[in-house]
Amino acid sequence: MNHALALPPRIGVLPEGGRNAVTDVPGVRVGHCTLSRAEIQTGVTVLCLHDRSHFLHKVPAAASVFNGFGKSVGLMQVEELGVLETPIALTNTFSVPAVAAAQIQVAMADHPDIGRESATVNPLVFECNDGYLNDIQAMAIEPTHYRQALAAAQPEFAQGSIGAGRGMSCFGLKGGIGSASRIAPGDTGYVVGALVLSNFGRLRNLIVDGKPVGRVVAERDAGRSEPDKGSIIMLLGTNAPLDALQLRRLSARAALGLARTGSCMGHGSGDIALAFTTAYTVPQRATDPMPAIAMVHASLLDGLFEAAVEATEQAVLNSLWFAEPVTGRDGHARTTLRSILAQN
Amino acid sequence: MNHALALPPRIGVLPEGGRNAVTDVPGVRVGHCTLSRAEIQTGVTVLCLHDRSHFLHKVPAAASVFNGFGKSVGLMQVEELGVLETPIALTNTFSVPAVAAAQIQVAMADHPDIGRESATVNPLVFECNDGYLNDIQAMAIEPTHYRQALAAAQPEFAQGSIGAGRGMSCFGLKGGIGSASRIAPGDTGYVVGALVLSNFGRLRNLIVDGKPVGRVVAERDAGRSEPDKGSIIMLLGTNAPLDALQLRRLSARAALGLARTGSCMGHGSGDIALAFTTAYTVPQRATDPMPAIAMVHASLLDGLFEAAVEATEQAVLNSLWFAEPVTGRDGHARTTLRSILAQN
Amino acid sequence: MNHALALPPRIGVLPEGGRNAVTDVPGVRVGHCTLSRAEIQTGVTVLCLHDRSHFLHKVPAAASVFNGFGKSVGLMQVEELGVLETPIALTNTFSVPAVAAAQIQVAMADHPDIGRESATVNPLVFECNDGYLNDIQAMAIEPTHYRQALAAAQPEFAQGSIGAGRGMSCFGLKGGIGSASRIAPGDTGYVVGALVLSNFGRLRNLIVDGKPVGRVVAERDAGRSEPDKGSIIMLLGTNAPLDALQLRRLSARAALGLARTGSCMGHGSGDIALAFTTAYTVPQRATDPMPAIAMVHASLLDGLFEAAVEATEQAVLNSLWFAEPVTGRDGHARTTLRSILAQN
Amino acid sequence: MNHALALPPRIGVLPEGGRNAVTDVPGVRVGHCTLSRAEIQTGVTVLCLHDRSHFLHKVPAAASVFNGFGKSVGLMQVEELGVLETPIALTNTFSVPAVAAAQIQVAMADHPDIGRESATVNPLVFECNDGYLNDIQAMAIEPTHYRQALAAAQPEFAQGSIGAGRGMSCFGLKGGIGSASRIAPGDTGYVVGALVLSNFGRLRNLIVDGKPVGRVVAERDAGRSEPDKGSIIMLLGTNAPLDALQLRRLSARAALGLARTGSCMGHGSGDIALAFTTAYTVPQRATDPMPAIAMVHASLLDGLFEAAVEATEQAVLNSLWFAEPVTGRDGHARTTLRSILAQN
Repeated sequence: MNHALALPPRIGVLPEGGRNAVTDVPGVRVGHCTLSRAEIQTGVTVLCLHDRSHFLHKVPAAASVFNGFGKSVGLMQVEELGVLETPIALTNTFSVPAVAAAQIQVAMADHPDIGRESATVNPLVFECNDGYLNDIQAMAIEPTHYRQALAAAQPEFAQGSIGAGRGMSCFGLKGGIGSASRIAPGDTGYVVGALVLSNFGRLRNLIVDGKPVGRVVAERDAGRSEPDKGSIIMLLGTNAPLDALQLRRLSARAALGLARTGSCMGHGSGDIALAFTTAYTVPQRATDPMPAIAMVHASLLDGLFEAAVEATEQAVLNSLWFAEPVTGRDGHARTTLRSILAQN
Repeated sequence: MNHALALPPRIGVLPEGGRNAVTDVPGVRVGHCTLSRAEIQTGVTVLCLHDRSHFLHKVPAAASVFNGFGKSVGLMQVEELGVLETPIALTNTFSVPAVAAAQIQVAMADHPDIGRESATVNPLVFECNDGYLNDIQAMAIEPTHYRQALAAAQPEFAQGSIGAGRGMSCFGLKGGIGSASRIAPGDTGYVVGALVLSNFGRLRNLIVDGKPVGRVVAERDAGRSEPDKGSIIMLLGTNAPLDALQLRRLSARAALGLARTGSCMGHGSGDIALAFTTAYTVPQRATDPMPAIAMVHASLLDGLFEAAVEATEQAVLNSLWFAEPVTGRDGHARTTLRSILAQN
Repeated sequence: MNHALALPPRIGVLPEGGRNAVTDVPGVRVGHCTLSRAEIQTGVTVLCLHDRSHFLHKVPAAASVFNGFGKSVGLMQVEELGVLETPIALTNTFSVPAVAAAQIQVAMADHPDIGRESATVNPLVFECNDGYLNDIQAMAIEPTHYRQALAAAQPEFAQGSIGAGRGMSCFGLKGGIGSASRIAPGDTGYVVGALVLSNFGRLRNLIVDGKPVGRVVAERDAGRSEPDKGSIIMLLGTNAPLDALQLRRLSARAALGLARTGSCMGHGSGDIALAFTTAYTVPQRATDPMPAIAMVHASLLDGLFEAAVEATEQAVLNSLWFAEPVTGRDGHARTTLRSILAQN
Repeated sequence: MNHALALPPRIGVLPEGGRNAVTDVPGVRVGHCTLSRAEIQTGVTVLCLHDRSHFLHKVPAAASVFNGFGKSVGLMQVEELGVLETPIALTNTFSVPAVAAAQIQVAMADHPDIGRESATVNPLVFECNDGYLNDIQAMAIEPTHYRQALAAAQPEFAQGSIGAGRGMSCFGLKGGIGSASRIAPGDTGYVVGALVLSNFGRLRNLIVDGKPVGRVVAERDAGRSEPDKGSIIMLLGTNAPLDALQLRRLSARAALGLARTGSCMGHGSGDIALAFTTAYTVPQRATDPMPAIAMVHASLLDGLFEAAVEATEQAVLNSLWFAEPVTGRDGHARTTLRSILAQN
């Protein structure tokens, strides 16, 4: 393998979508807002799942919490109801309140009945701790940064050290935003797209497409060793019509792709997956008709599961591959996987 | 029964603690910050579980989510680790971000290593929607209100239309903060204390100590009828040494006390219980010794369960009983249980 | 109230179905096989949810485990897939293996491809411990008794000390099989039916329609006191089209009806509810079409929740009311609620 | 790599225990009973966790159900109480009732008070579907086979096509029983041992120590393709003092080791892990003292997690490596990983 290649190693055997990204799921758009100034290396990333109001047209979703040492908000209601009702936001741990407040404000602006005639709205914000590169104590993210990321959402988007990924570290290297997609086997036309925010792992555990790259490098650079304190957020989207129970099962497969990159799900790591479908929406208003469509037969889920595993592994790898080096708080710096591989 | 009595009906058969409140659990203190000005009828209530840093000396805790239509934050990590690491905060739904931010700020001020050498801190904020009486869209709570409630925490505290309970409605009447305690049978000295934030229910379902008071009143006042859109937060504390698994089992019994007040756990109601023990703490630092104490034998839990059921029912009743009438947003007003009973 | 009345007190306000039983849910049939000879006082009860093969036409279902000190089998797969694929069986704790084996045998006889070309089948057997009245160590139930109960299933069925309820005790009195139904408010035509196997509680905790009957009797008969070692199984059926997530929410409301009868969910009690719908089925074969029908809008669930609470409380009360006294192992005997009430 | 080597490839970097098996956890013993006659290719495997009564001296344990399409019994009570109270049994899907009955009988023989003065006992039986090689419809396992496996339990035991593993298939090859152990980093002396019953996967997904062996072979043997219908049971033991919450976290890491062997957790696969500790026991009798020992600090769990991941991956690989070819029902046959590798 020539590690100087422009493209990351290709994981698995299934074909990928046109963008090899979560936005291969029709309707999905991704936007970033990045803060990069000296000690402040952080940001917000937003996924819009369709073009209409997520509050009025709720998106079927379900989550798997593999390791709950995390501060993401909004999952309790998703688990109870099987739907989400805002775009999905990603940011750093201590900026969750600011982004959650922004989600409430945006929803109220669009729907003045929220919290009055209507129910309240459920913010959905995922986080990782970027405190190694970013001065997380500064709580630099403000509600306006969520709005900027939201406004920037489009099908084409950058990966790596950008948006919520700006300050993230992964396997002791620069991590961040990564994405990929896979087409399920057969002629269903079902695609599974993954977007991850990677911020976990010790270098010596890193596996790249089955190869123990981290072990080799760690032995070379004896002494480099840090505890596994990070986290990873894994978002899986599909256009297959799945109900919330099936989406929970799909989200559970993200752990398998993650495992193949070398994760041991450390104690201090918030490891969470959420899966959603864009095949249908659920109305806020009881006066609107409920969807009446056939879900995928359970015996046909295996292709989606396999696509989820491959897409997740590829997305984590891409988050490392597309990352640019970043220097931040107290002169802390992270180099990149590509530079490590180039030395071998 | 003379409903004009100063004291609420007494639930059950077990003896109560000296204050008949959650603060009968040694070390527990409660503080309120109340905002009451025209359209703004809301507040913050804080429970401190001991006098030291909750971050350094984590409190064993576990939760039961009976109906997850809610926006409380922090439970994912409590479920994973079996401990909480901040005081417990209660407020209105849209003020969760402000109070969570305040918890982060207070923890950072006390522990400058948080988010740097140490892990981040997990805010723990429970909420109900007080939007009927309070202009919840104003997002009136600011971080300073959390600090004020924290500073005010003491063993003696007021119940009813105060703190986070200021704008809450329960069974179409004025709800809010209620508390009670019960001593477990036998000579163990174990006490279970409950504190609730009540904001749920339809009048016609209200049961007072077994009597269908709400049905009678609702038939009299035909036409009064509102959907069950509220929520209830039920906090149970004990001095019995329980591990996190046992605390989860204790928290599950809160639903039984709640049921006896007439709740049907409506779709739109976030019904959550959290149980904690003050019998021991778990250290943040690996260099501090882990506790080495014997837990309660499982066969002896029944007394604690019975105490939890009685204390919860009494606390909900007390939240109604001690509430003062409040008029708020758009002239909305809630009358009190006592005034309803006085008419009978 | 004249306790000598032939009919049990009527719980709540909602109208009941024509039979006031779980068989008011169209298609549901119940059958019993009862063993009553000296030390052997036990049996099997079976619920058929439609007239076709449950394996080919799976029934949407979900469960809530309120207290997991129990030995029921089959719930893991129901939770994962959201369907059940055999009739529901009830029996005593140590007869679960015999009944599970019988369910496998019946399914194989009907479908010789099971465990060969097709997947295996998931037995679903609930249990309570009838060891006070029944010689449970004799493991007297054999597979043929399941088949007899299955063959006997019909819309009309007896309640009380019959079938799986033969040897059960409840609140220190004779318990067993009880059933009831309630029509949800509005003109939807939705019904919720409950069938319980009651075997829990201490006499002093018994509440009958809000009245602390047990406390009164226990004070009269000072000294009667037994730990709460039993269990309760609560089955809820409906004709409303609910998905598995909604069925889980419906099953959670059974705890509220149970609470109002005086349960504290003792440590040693396996307290479990399962809810199912007969509105549609899910095919075993991928070649059969998946259902494509609209589910109930979430905001309309409250009426079903209220019906579930009332039906469960009524069913527990009916299990006590319709029980006949039984004398069994070592001369142990249980008297009935009616006889206790007649003494007051 | 010379695939003709006598020993399987070695996974990971951590040192192994003396036996490289689950029996490196002090006190653990394993026994098999194997049935191998024409169409009957099945068996029972039993793990004893200490030398005393498991009913009187309960073993702390917790489980993770990764995919619940399975018929194992006993986990509901383990989840509620955090302990198991019988040896752990493994067998085929349709023999669960016979083995559960045997566990009840053995417990009653040892403790005549069970189901009378004492509570009942909770059978704990895990299963996979060996119906490809074994005539599972014959239900050939009888209670005596459980007793034979129990009597045969010792620290040294065979792996591969033996005991419950006799008829199992894995990645389209011969699977069965595999075991391994790893020593946690540092000088704690903590060991994690794994024992798996492997019966899952499609050949084309097989990964051996990072290498896509299955893909290569599948491309060579185009046309070999079967759906993923199997299951895997993964048992993890440790001598580290962990509480039930920590054991659940440990069990969750088994999925990571499994993922690295190529599993996508197919829809039809019951994928379950259970973790236990032998560091202490919990008494049945309230009159016996509860343990009062310090648990492992959470920040030190990472070493155990890493050991669990490596031991699980190694155990799955060992189950393939040590398997002998088996021919069974209808002439169905499974070849072995070693023979496949030898052809490359």
